[in-house]
Amino acid sequence: AILAAIQFHITGGVDGPLAGKKVVITAGPTFEPLDPVRGLTNRSSGRQGYAIAEKLVRDGADVTLISGPVALPTPVGVTRLDVDTAQDMFDAVHAQLPCDVFVGVAAVADWRAKDIASEKQKKTTDNELSITFVKNPDILEAVSKHLDLRPRLVIGFAAETQKLEDYAKAKLASKGCDAIVANDVSTGVFGSNSNAATLVDLDGFTPIAGQTKADIADFLSTYIQKRIS
Amino acid sequence: AILAAIQFHITGGVDGPLAGKKVVITAGPTFEPLDPVRGLTNRSSGRQGYAIAEKLVRDGADVTLISGPVALPTPVGVTRLDVDTAQDMFDAVHAQLPCDVFVGVAAVADWRAKDIASEKQKKTTDNELSITFVKNPDILEAVSKHLDLRPRLVIGFAAETQKLEDYAKAKLASKGCDAIVANDVSTGVFGSNSNAATLVDLDGFTPIAGQTKADIADFLSTYIQKRIS
Repeated sequence: AILAAIQFHITGGVDGPLAGKKVVITAGPTFEPLDPVRGLTNRSSGRQGYAIAEKLVRDGADVTLISGPVALPTPVGVTRLDVDTAQDMFDAVHAQLPCDVFVGVAAVADWRAKDIASEKQKKTTDNELSITFVKNPDILEAVSKHLDLRPRLVIGFAAETQKLEDYAKAKLASKGCDAIVANDVSTGVFGSNSNAATLVDLDGFTPIAGQTKADIADFLSTYIQKRIS
Repeated sequence: AILAAIQFHITGGVDGPLAGKKVVITAGPTFEPLDPVRGLTNRSSGRQGYAIAEKLVRDGADVTLISGPVALPTPVGVTRLDVDTAQDMFDAVHAQLPCDVFVGVAAVADWRAKDIASEKQKKTTDNELSITFVKNPDILEAVSKHLDLRPRLVIGFAAETQKLEDYAKAKLASKGCDAIVANDVSTGVFGSNSNAATLVDLDGFTPIAGQTKADIADFLSTYIQKRIS
């Protein structure tokens, strides 16, 4: 941590190319409770979002990282806010507006339980259980279409197991964001240090060179600098 | 890790009071997939099971730790097997029988999705989603009632938010195990280093002194030594 703090001051920090820019990043999974113990989540480790936060703060940005439950240390210089549910994340993001750049990396649950049991539910003798879910608010879309406080640049992530580029292009259009980083998660990316990704924006598709989450963070920092300078 | 390895040899290890005893421990949550990305889990951090594994191996036991997805290092001297689902954990436990002692600390999901989608499910325009779950096998009960390979001592854990001792006593009877450690999880025990617990066996209730998960591990090691020596 001491070494990281020294590197932070040597390699950029407040004097970097993103100095003076406020960036809000979401990372990790959300946890949607079913009762006081159980919940719905996903395999996101948070590593990609944390790698981006680390890179952007080193390049001088003022970074707020809104994080679901993960087992990762906070990068030096980053302001971290912990949340559990998609609704909490939605509220925390909106409380951070206005900002210059929003990067939504979190794997936000689309659904939450319609009713959350106040006590841990006991097993019954029934052999089946049915749970009804209702839609969560869409954070990326809400930020992209914000009437008063839309950031200058809004970037989303799309984790897909098939038709990567088709879905990313459709997501770009429907959410109203400026760019989507499309990740192929069919080959075990979640929880690993590497990704295989493509950036989709109005100019088309740009394959991201490099295999690690740090490579994608480097690519995004350069992209952000180009788009908002 | 080096210090731990030295301590392991100094303070017990192969020469301790549990030398020659094979112990199988489950720890952590399970993860029941809904599709390649999402799943049902719970707030168990795995710390209690790992603390017990660490203590028992230091007291000389041959410890196999069957662990759900957690962010914890493997205690020195422990054999660790990683699993995701309750069914995988059930199979891994049975593959370890016979053993002298089984300690089921994992927060095993009672239910799994009836159908697991092979591709990540897309949001639809519907406002509600219903998922049907079916029962998982009961690992503690299966081990306790195993016809040929029942361990000499079977200990379970019960995480409850209400009527702690009533439920623990009922669980002891219905599962057929020898003791239940009942945890009150209504006050934020999951993910913390402390617990408030009571041991229930045929002799009645024994409050466990001490506040930390290491205290509970110490108590259990003494209990196990008394019961199987």
